[in-house]
Amino acid sequence: MTKPLKIAVAGLGTVGAGTIKLLFDHADMISARCGRNIVCTAVAARNRAKDRGVSMTEQQWFDDPVTMAAQADADVIVELIGGSSGAAKAVCETAIAHGRHVVTANKALLAVHGNDLARLAEDAGVTLAYEASVAGGIPIIKALREGLVGNKISALSGILNGTCNYILTTMRETGRDFSDVLAEAQQLGYAEADPSFDIDGVDAAHKLTILSSLAFGHKLDFAAVKSEGIRHISAEDIRLAGELGYRIKLLGIARSTEHGIEQRVYPCMVPLASPIAQVEGVFNAVEVVGDYVGRSVYEGRGAGAGPTASAVVADLVDIALGRSSPTFGIPATKMKPAVFADPGKHLGAYYVRLMVRDKPGVLADVTAALRDENVSIESVIQRSRAPDGVVPLVMTLHETEEANVTRALARIEELETVTEPPRLIRIEGV
Amino acid sequence: MTKPLKIAVAGLGTVGAGTIKLLFDHADMISARCGRNIVCTAVAARNRAKDRGVSMTEQQWFDDPVTMAAQADADVIVELIGGSSGAAKAVCETAIAHGRHVVTANKALLAVHGNDLARLAEDAGVTLAYEASVAGGIPIIKALREGLVGNKISALSGILNGTCNYILTTMRETGRDFSDVLAEAQQLGYAEADPSFDIDGVDAAHKLTILSSLAFGHKLDFAAVKSEGIRHISAEDIRLAGELGYRIKLLGIARSTEHGIEQRVYPCMVPLASPIAQVEGVFNAVEVVGDYVGRSVYEGRGAGAGPTASAVVADLVDIALGRSSPTFGIPATKMKPAVFADPGKHLGAYYVRLMVRDKPGVLADVTAALRDENVSIESVIQRSRAPDGVVPLVMTLHETEEANVTRALARIEELETVTEPPRLIRIEGV
Repeated sequence: MTKPLKIAVAGLGTVGAGTIKLLFDHADMISARCGRNIVCTAVAARNRAKDRGVSMTEQQWFDDPVTMAAQADADVIVELIGGSSGAAKAVCETAIAHGRHVVTANKALLAVHGNDLARLAEDAGVTLAYEASVAGGIPIIKALREGLVGNKISALSGILNGTCNYILTTMRETGRDFSDVLAEAQQLGYAEADPSFDIDGVDAAHKLTILSSLAFGHKLDFAAVKSEGIRHISAEDIRLAGELGYRIKLLGIARSTEHGIEQRVYPCMVPLASPIAQVEGVFNAVEVVGDYVGRSVYEGRGAGAGPTASAVVADLVDIALGRSSPTFGIPATKMKPAVFADPGKHLGAYYVRLMVRDKPGVLADVTAALRDENVSIESVIQRSRAPDGVVPLVMTLHETEEANVTRALARIEELETVTEPPRLIRIEGV
Repeated sequence: MTKPLKIAVAGLGTVGAGTIKLLFDHADMISARCGRNIVCTAVAARNRAKDRGVSMTEQQWFDDPVTMAAQADADVIVELIGGSSGAAKAVCETAIAHGRHVVTANKALLAVHGNDLARLAEDAGVTLAYEASVAGGIPIIKALREGLVGNKISALSGILNGTCNYILTTMRETGRDFSDVLAEAQQLGYAEADPSFDIDGVDAAHKLTILSSLAFGHKLDFAAVKSEGIRHISAEDIRLAGELGYRIKLLGIARSTEHGIEQRVYPCMVPLASPIAQVEGVFNAVEVVGDYVGRSVYEGRGAGAGPTASAVVADLVDIALGRSSPTFGIPATKMKPAVFADPGKHLGAYYVRLMVRDKPGVLADVTAALRDENVSIESVIQRSRAPDGVVPLVMTLHETEEANVTRALARIEELETVTEPPRLIRIEGV
């Protein structure tokens, strides 16, 4: 048998401990599948005393992960610290500088510094692997980069954030409001104390940055992802979506259009019968459309110790077997900046909810504004009555350029009878 | 740039022509992703004159694929002839004997001779790749063998035959009978003139043999797959399934149980809300349950020139980049025969449809037979009345060992009031 692959783990949260546990539990199986053992020789974390549910007596302990990345007796450094800069970045750079492979679950780091890190790794002849960074245990990086390698990808879209999907699912199932469900999710540990990375779409945007680059072969460009979170989604929107035959999901969408690449994160309505509408709770799913393969969908748990450890170990086995790929599908030196589409050029259908005073003439004013911007209405729902009170006025709009809708809504917002900023939710997949 | 990877294609049906077209259409993209070109240097097929929609003037032409496997100027032989023996087998053996890699879409060949071929390839130090053999363009082989490599798999189940899924979907949507829909599928080219391989579950059993071996690490054993097709599914069964909250799907299921491996193909009822119930028409899907990753689902087009070519090219790129794996996840020399579970030990719920004379006492006789075999009834539907005529009597049975149900149904079949053999459909995923 070939000599063992030695790994050192930086960061011993649930994922780090889960990875060590997996390698221990399945040592024989992994050894049979790799033809060699994978052993953890070193770990780095702050608190040595904490019980992490796995024995860590065999490993050399480092208080400083960067020191470990430089000094550990290891072929691979597994970076599970997180964050787009600081220690995580230093660990990866130091590991590469010392000729060690890097396995990371850190989407923020890759989204922001992926181009540079890939270049460094490729120059050093080491692997930078990151299956765990997107969609947890779903092997979506491998599917896109290797399984669908023969395809020109035209679009991908995914439920990339389990926290948002859990909140939207629970809002739908219970009819409760966003803030109420968020508070519960925080209590249950499904949402962070500071939930903004998740619910404002930042986490999904990090992941989309990676997937978009893999799909289309351009440089990663997190700053170019236009993203919008789910804070403004009301229980009423969720109920109306169901009534209209849709379900609201936070999607990350990357699409190749005649105007360039669209790379966006937003809550949108998807048809109830679509596979992605059925993906509920903490599950993630990614739909990919390729020119030869057609549509394919990948679904599974998007986070958690087990699924993430599963992805980390898949990367380790690739390294153990000497399987490697250009980091983002093509060599980093060949990746060009993307030409991004103007978001205003987005062609789509839309759901619009207005809060209006229940007075004669409101609908005439609203529809005139839409007509003037060449936006055509598919359906109108105005059911509740509250003479001189405020009622929702809901419309779905036919496919049109987003800029037209934006202009129309700006005019509508100025109307004296419209009491709140209009809410727009894009309709996808129709 | 490294020198080109040269391939020779045996069999120029739609998949062979599709593969050559893909390599031509996407030559630049593939070259960027592999760091080298993939060129087709030779082809073998019987009819040289046929228009296949792609130019084949650059390739050396062989009338005999086995001669090509021995003599072509190629690193890889792509076997797209089909069939579990004859030319396909000889092509693969000859290629391996000449130190060439093999890429095949041939599930029948692998299901029957996969153990020997893997051994030959591994001894020769060449790759035997077969992503295209199961579930068309879905990279399920790669997902199982590489993406989920860190998991102990407990179960997998899949819609593995697009023809059956198309027939069952159409029966449900139109209310028409099996034979009627089959005839139409044959006219549309979705079913073969001799459809028995598809509709009797043989094709799904070939694919399940491969997936089961990958999931559990045992030798391939096609003869041990117990399979049952969809000929006996009636329009009435489909309608009743819907009424009971299920959809009927032909599933291939491999499961690790305390009695050994279950490896079976049969039509079954799955809950309407399950992801697999939503997979319709010619789509395939595979659900895999691993101990760390949990449940994950892979869905896409299960057949056709484009998806299959996509899978063939994924294998070629792996070879071009020098990425290899033990053929079935662990070296062929280490694969042991599986211990299979006695099918009678299967624990499950069941749907049973009897055709009975509408006479007093029928239900008493039927329920007595079930009671005597310790089978307990969950629900009974006997709605239509036709005094002294024949009516359906439908029951769902609580989870129990299949042997008990089989014995009870044998007794029920003997009843003078029961006019046809009882129809049993297993209920899965509850």
